[in-house]
Amino acid sequence: MYAAFDMNETMLSLAPVKTMWDRHIPGAHREWFARLLHLSLVANETDAYVDFTSLGGSALRYVCEANGYEHPDRALDDLKHAMAGLTAHPDVRAGLEMLRDSGWTMVTLTNSTSTTAVSSLATAGLDGLFDQVLTVEAVAKYKPDPAPYQMAAAFLGKPVDEIWMVASHDWDLAGARRAGMRTAYVRRDGLPWASIYEPPDVAVDDFVELADRLAVGQ
Amino acid sequence: MYAAFDMNETMLSLAPVKTMWDRHIPGAHREWFARLLHLSLVANETDAYVDFTSLGGSALRYVCEANGYEHPDRALDDLKHAMAGLTAHPDVRAGLEMLRDSGWTMVTLTNSTSTTAVSSLATAGLDGLFDQVLTVEAVAKYKPDPAPYQMAAAFLGKPVDEIWMVASHDWDLAGARRAGMRTAYVRRDGLPWASIYEPPDVAVDDFVELADRLAVGQ
Repeated sequence: MYAAFDMNETMLSLAPVKTMWDRHIPGAHREWFARLLHLSLVANETDAYVDFTSLGGSALRYVCEANGYEHPDRALDDLKHAMAGLTAHPDVRAGLEMLRDSGWTMVTLTNSTSTTAVSSLATAGLDGLFDQVLTVEAVAKYKPDPAPYQMAAAFLGKPVDEIWMVASHDWDLAGARRAGMRTAYVRRDGLPWASIYEPPDVAVDDFVELADRLAVGQ
Repeated sequence: MYAAFDMNETMLSLAPVKTMWDRHIPGAHREWFARLLHLSLVANETDAYVDFTSLGGSALRYVCEANGYEHPDRALDDLKHAMAGLTAHPDVRAGLEMLRDSGWTMVTLTNSTSTTAVSSLATAGLDGLFDQVLTVEAVAKYKPDPAPYQMAAAFLGKPVDEIWMVASHDWDLAGARRAGMRTAYVRRDGLPWASIYEPPDVAVDDFVELADRLAVGQ
């Protein structure tokens, strides 16, 4: 009865970030996020950790330049504003409360900085639902490197195969699986499951269904 | 007087691939390539090597689905067709011949499969200019993991800091630098240098300028 939760897109809707991008460079949201993820893994490969907020800014400038967009500072301001006001998907709080009331121990496990994670949970009204806010900053390696998952298991003091990783990203769950965790996939709009990855242990449409499935699964 | 050359975009123009994407999902070229690169590094992180051609197909299906495009098979056929007919940027052959005539030992070092690399060089008229076609298949780790760069140094039988890595991708040169190589950046259209990476040792506009700079640099 232990679970680690991804935050961006899994719990927090990134719709305002998509809106921000569409205002500046229509359709560039996914290009930016894919670049950001690639930057994070190049940092892993080259042992050169830089925090996720900074990588997000660098990826934004790259996408602006690649698309010939001449106002990156304006876009960056708007991105910061959008990121600071993210709300939870409507099913998240109810599902987390169901799990907490069933005795689950829950932590976050996000690529974001600790500062961002703590303030995002408060803004989205999800603070107080987690036993600990864990972020990759503690190990300076981004998911899906094994280190963050192993850190979560170490914090929880349980064998890694007793811990569920909950995410809306196939690559996050591929890393969790590789590290030995159980995997729960939350389908969110516009995020397919890449054919290259093994299917997750559980796939659900929202957090209420997740709570039902995990309770039954115990 | 040893150099390893990236192939895609650095030597071979990916303009036909951009045209292919614009025919199916306008502007999705960079989203697809960023996804492809991310898939390759998730494969590194999870010790689950899958060849670059297959990753390219998986990334294509992902981008089609994420964009609500319903003819991925058609797009994949067109991608394969485009990839099979890539031509060299006009400066490449002249620059490589200048280096070869100056006594340089030259190898490729690409994320592509060996089959693709060999046939692409022949199609582009660059076969015979390299002492060896090296690809990441031999080590089952994608650049910028240290393994491919170390493999190139081992093949060349020279200290890694005597070998130049030539690429139009900042992340490739970040990995080469981390592995101890010297780095030469070839600027190609639409590919900015991300602010997060240290600058390369040499930056040029084309292969003729590259040959001039490297000859002078020796």
